[in-house]
Amino acid sequence: MREFILFSRGVTKDFSLNDLPNAGRMDLVARCISSSIFLSYSLRKDVKFHAVLNGPPNPPLTITFFSNELKNVSPDERNICSHIKIAIKNFFKGKNLSEPGIYVEKKSFEEVVKEKVEEYGKDYVFYLSREGEDVSNVNLTESFVAIVGDNKGIPKKTEMFLEKIETKKVSLGEIEYLASQSIIIFNYLVDRKCKL
Amino acid sequence: MREFILFSRGVTKDFSLNDLPNAGRMDLVARCISSSIFLSYSLRKDVKFHAVLNGPPNPPLTITFFSNELKNVSPDERNICSHIKIAIKNFFKGKNLSEPGIYVEKKSFEEVVKEKVEEYGKDYVFYLSREGEDVSNVNLTESFVAIVGDNKGIPKKTEMFLEKIETKKVSLGEIEYLASQSIIIFNYLVDRKCKL
Repeated sequence: MREFILFSRGVTKDFSLNDLPNAGRMDLVARCISSSIFLSYSLRKDVKFHAVLNGPPNPPLTITFFSNELKNVSPDERNICSHIKIAIKNFFKGKNLSEPGIYVEKKSFEEVVKEKVEEYGKDYVFYLSREGEDVSNVNLTESFVAIVGDNKGIPKKTEMFLEKIETKKVSLGEIEYLASQSIIIFNYLVDRKCKL
Repeated sequence: MREFILFSRGVTKDFSLNDLPNAGRMDLVARCISSSIFLSYSLRKDVKFHAVLNGPPNPPLTITFFSNELKNVSPDERNICSHIKIAIKNFFKGKNLSEPGIYVEKKSFEEVVKEKVEEYGKDYVFYLSREGEDVSNVNLTESFVAIVGDNKGIPKKTEMFLEKIETKKVSLGEIEYLASQSIIIFNYLVDRKCKL
């Protein structure tokens, strides 16, 4: 299984599909989902993407997209966000499973990460950060958890938590890529097992 | 200079920002532009992205985004498409330069590719296709032209043109990625000069 965890400042309420950037950069959340899961005319198998929304007014909220179960989702930002919008609405009506493959839980970033460290072991939970160990020195495996921050990055306090819990800080190089780009690159490197 | 050429079926008329997929997959065009040009809080220097729109009713139309001149463009699909929408409108009012960094010309895919082959030399014009030579065997340089097809790919006849003009067919591996993902991966491999 490949799992991605995004620390997002996305809003935890209804939002307009016509202004995703002002919904706590929901456009970025959508791009990260598409980057994790979509391929040309297919979805990757065995991928879970967790967006931890830390925006107002009801943070935190963790929305999970599980590729094996998803139906009727397209890679464009508006379509993905329409599913997120419905999932948030459904959650506040008491439904955790919004539709096949889309789950919402009242769970914090720290809780999600802790769970994954227990499940995968700390050596397989990577925090993608420019200051980390260069990816060329990291042993990549098919099964992993990769953590990314949104446009404002992961707050200092939360970074200290990641350090304490001993997630592996991994760098893709000297350039600071968009979160969605980092996900695509990391997926690719695992696809190729760094054999380039 | 890095240049990307997208063979797109995007429409060559005004379109709704609320339904980009039905505008000949204008969402895909936007993602490819963002993938070519954007980094975290910055734009790449020296990147030109050409979307050759072959959709109805006035094909072909080539829209070029030049990173060094762009202003006020965000990486979300809706924002990028709002600039494309204005550029198309301006073109039909007789303006080739819509705003700094965004140009529209009545130019076909073949014309754009031919120009670039003359400018860069055929060894530096790559056609990203799963059937090509594996990228690990290709000598990547900072200056190149990369050609990608949209969701329906490049038509057979146009592929034969690419073969005849001797562009280099390069494969990113066994997986068929989205056009935008291929661009991000290719940009990354050049960033790292395949030294991973």
